[in-house]
Amino acid sequence: MAEKLKGNLVVAQSGGPTAVINASVAGVAEEAFKHADTIPGVIGSLHGIEGVLYEDLIDLAQEDRATISGLTSTPAAALGSCRHKLTEADYDRIIEVFRAHDIRYFFYTGGNDSMDTAARVSRMGAEKGYEVRSVGIPKTIDNDLAFTDHCPGFGSVARWVASSVRDAGLDTEAIGVVDKIKIVEIMGRNAGWITAASALARDHEDAAPHLIYVPEKPINLDRFLGDVQNVYDRLGYCLITVCEGVKGEDGKPLMASTSAINVDAFGHAQMGGVADYLCSVIADRLKLKARFDKPGTIQRVSAALQSPVDRDEAYGAGAEAVRQAIAGVTGKMVTIERVSDDPYRSKFGLADLDKVANAEKLIPEEFLSPAGNDVTEAFVKYAQPLIGGPLPKYSYLKKVALPKKVS
Amino acid sequence: MAEKLKGNLVVAQSGGPTAVINASVAGVAEEAFKHADTIPGVIGSLHGIEGVLYEDLIDLAQEDRATISGLTSTPAAALGSCRHKLTEADYDRIIEVFRAHDIRYFFYTGGNDSMDTAARVSRMGAEKGYEVRSVGIPKTIDNDLAFTDHCPGFGSVARWVASSVRDAGLDTEAIGVVDKIKIVEIMGRNAGWITAASALARDHEDAAPHLIYVPEKPINLDRFLGDVQNVYDRLGYCLITVCEGVKGEDGKPLMASTSAINVDAFGHAQMGGVADYLCSVIADRLKLKARFDKPGTIQRVSAALQSPVDRDEAYGAGAEAVRQAIAGVTGKMVTIERVSDDPYRSKFGLADLDKVANAEKLIPEEFLSPAGNDVTEAFVKYAQPLIGGPLPKYSYLKKVALPKKVS
Repeated sequence: MAEKLKGNLVVAQSGGPTAVINASVAGVAEEAFKHADTIPGVIGSLHGIEGVLYEDLIDLAQEDRATISGLTSTPAAALGSCRHKLTEADYDRIIEVFRAHDIRYFFYTGGNDSMDTAARVSRMGAEKGYEVRSVGIPKTIDNDLAFTDHCPGFGSVARWVASSVRDAGLDTEAIGVVDKIKIVEIMGRNAGWITAASALARDHEDAAPHLIYVPEKPINLDRFLGDVQNVYDRLGYCLITVCEGVKGEDGKPLMASTSAINVDAFGHAQMGGVADYLCSVIADRLKLKARFDKPGTIQRVSAALQSPVDRDEAYGAGAEAVRQAIAGVTGKMVTIERVSDDPYRSKFGLADLDKVANAEKLIPEEFLSPAGNDVTEAFVKYAQPLIGGPLPKYSYLKKVALPKKVS
Repeated sequence: MAEKLKGNLVVAQSGGPTAVINASVAGVAEEAFKHADTIPGVIGSLHGIEGVLYEDLIDLAQEDRATISGLTSTPAAALGSCRHKLTEADYDRIIEVFRAHDIRYFFYTGGNDSMDTAARVSRMGAEKGYEVRSVGIPKTIDNDLAFTDHCPGFGSVARWVASSVRDAGLDTEAIGVVDKIKIVEIMGRNAGWITAASALARDHEDAAPHLIYVPEKPINLDRFLGDVQNVYDRLGYCLITVCEGVKGEDGKPLMASTSAINVDAFGHAQMGGVADYLCSVIADRLKLKARFDKPGTIQRVSAALQSPVDRDEAYGAGAEAVRQAIAGVTGKMVTIERVSDDPYRSKFGLADLDKVANAEKLIPEEFLSPAGNDVTEAFVKYAQPLIGGPLPKYSYLKKVALPKKVS
């Protein structure tokens, strides 16, 4: 047990908002309130580390307790977020602000870049002789942090995607006689975890999505068109999920060649997204009407489709970070370790912030079909518990045909 | 009371899927089952009127009753939809099929075009001497049918849009330091009802959407850019909802000039949507980073955000259609008449199918702000009850600032 360190706490949020990042702040605050002897002040830093640099700090103890607990079902980032790359030039300023507000505990929610910031704050303390304990709380819809089974934020975006793709698939099936091909473009740069989660939409034979493309498997356009044609020939319609970060076999983002990029009336280059591009290729080469849905940021911050498992783990990771820091931990990120699949259970662990900051967890080979257009059962088994229980059951008609009486 | 007409019933779905169109089918079927003496057979026509033309008919009595009632919470169109313009050349074929299956009742869910089909089936009966009663059941997310207070399907898409825009607004507020402007592109061709419903997202001061643009008010680009700049100057970010059908002052769809349309590697012209275009104009003229969300068909078929008021009215309209037809009505559409706002109550009425088919209800002037960038309180009062109760409450921090201690 490390020596007891008395001082105030600051918590901040960084990177893209999620449906549960506020639950982590609630977890930090409510746990800290229990340790008022060690942590007398609970401070929120507005817009990530920038709130420390600009001294934009708020007193979380002055919020109603109901407001704090209500954060668990409020999406986005209540403290505001940022994308700030911390450098050593910032250290003196940070220590000055920490000292002025007697801050000894620093909790940062975010992805790789944010874990780099948390790591630097921890190192800074050691280098500059100012004792501070810095613990990272994982947060990324992208699910691409290493050393953790999964990341808070992923389960909820996965639930949104599964639910919405199921609905969009029924829509396509219903009106496939008109709009034959639909592409849903899903977030993700290098890692296709969220797009892969669209497989959880499937609840009956031939259910959407019929094809899934992720950045881990480069797209060959001819093979892609063959895949689409095959599904269309079989069903009369096709729903495809595609990660916005998919690449061609040359490793470049899949979109119209630069010479073909839209230049608008003001001379500004417009770069269509991958779904827009693939729709045009399908229309052109397969002569099939294709349309796309690009839900964008809506998918990552839906309170209505928050996963309860995700919310509870996000909250728990925040509380665990406080407990670990009080116990002496610094320079670590809280991780989630899976204990069992069914019933799903997890526990918390720790990983070095430095290691987390420099790693990116892509979808492993065993989760992706060899053909590069789907996921495997192993992936479904991995992801299913994270969305917090199965989607509500839908009613599907047996459709008993009446005998034809007219020739 | 008209003479009792004994015969089977056929129900079909047409036009774009919605979150509650299946509830209308459940309403038709369950009401019909109660009148087995008059209506011995309850038949579903697959893919709208095309199911009649191709004799693709199913026996709804052979479905489990639980499956039928489960349709109320299953989105899209369980019988399949179509966009088929019925002509007199089809009449003989329809009567042949009706006669072969002893069909005397025809129920069609849909918008203007579908009401035209229902009207023709009613006329056809009179002209050809085959007694059939045809009643329309309103269904359109666009809410643009005349002679009815609103249309089943609208309340649910409105709830989806309100909820998603609220979430997207919090997202933009949280990360506005990076992504300053966000545009959410919402469905609608000539009528901006769905986009207008984004106003129901607002639950606190300065809440999103900050600007709302609908086709009823042409966009002047300079004024639009001024609006965006004003909001940005005040808040540091801005969320805009824009209907995909908005037009410029020349009455043409708002997008890059045709000479600037993207031509992809295969020579296929790609036409960016309006949000994509406006993002590029904002980036170019205001030098602000802008991004867009285009949820597309996902917005119209969400079971998770189905409005209970909408679902119950869609079901009720189906049941009412059956009751009215048994009582002798034909050539009419069931309408919804608002009885009171608070508590919200409605009752059903009837309108001539011919009149409905030839009218389009745009947003009236009193629901739109004179500046053309927002809706009025009168609109909010109109739309609020239709989404089925207020959105769940979110937690917003007071953000009590700590006194600055460092210069």
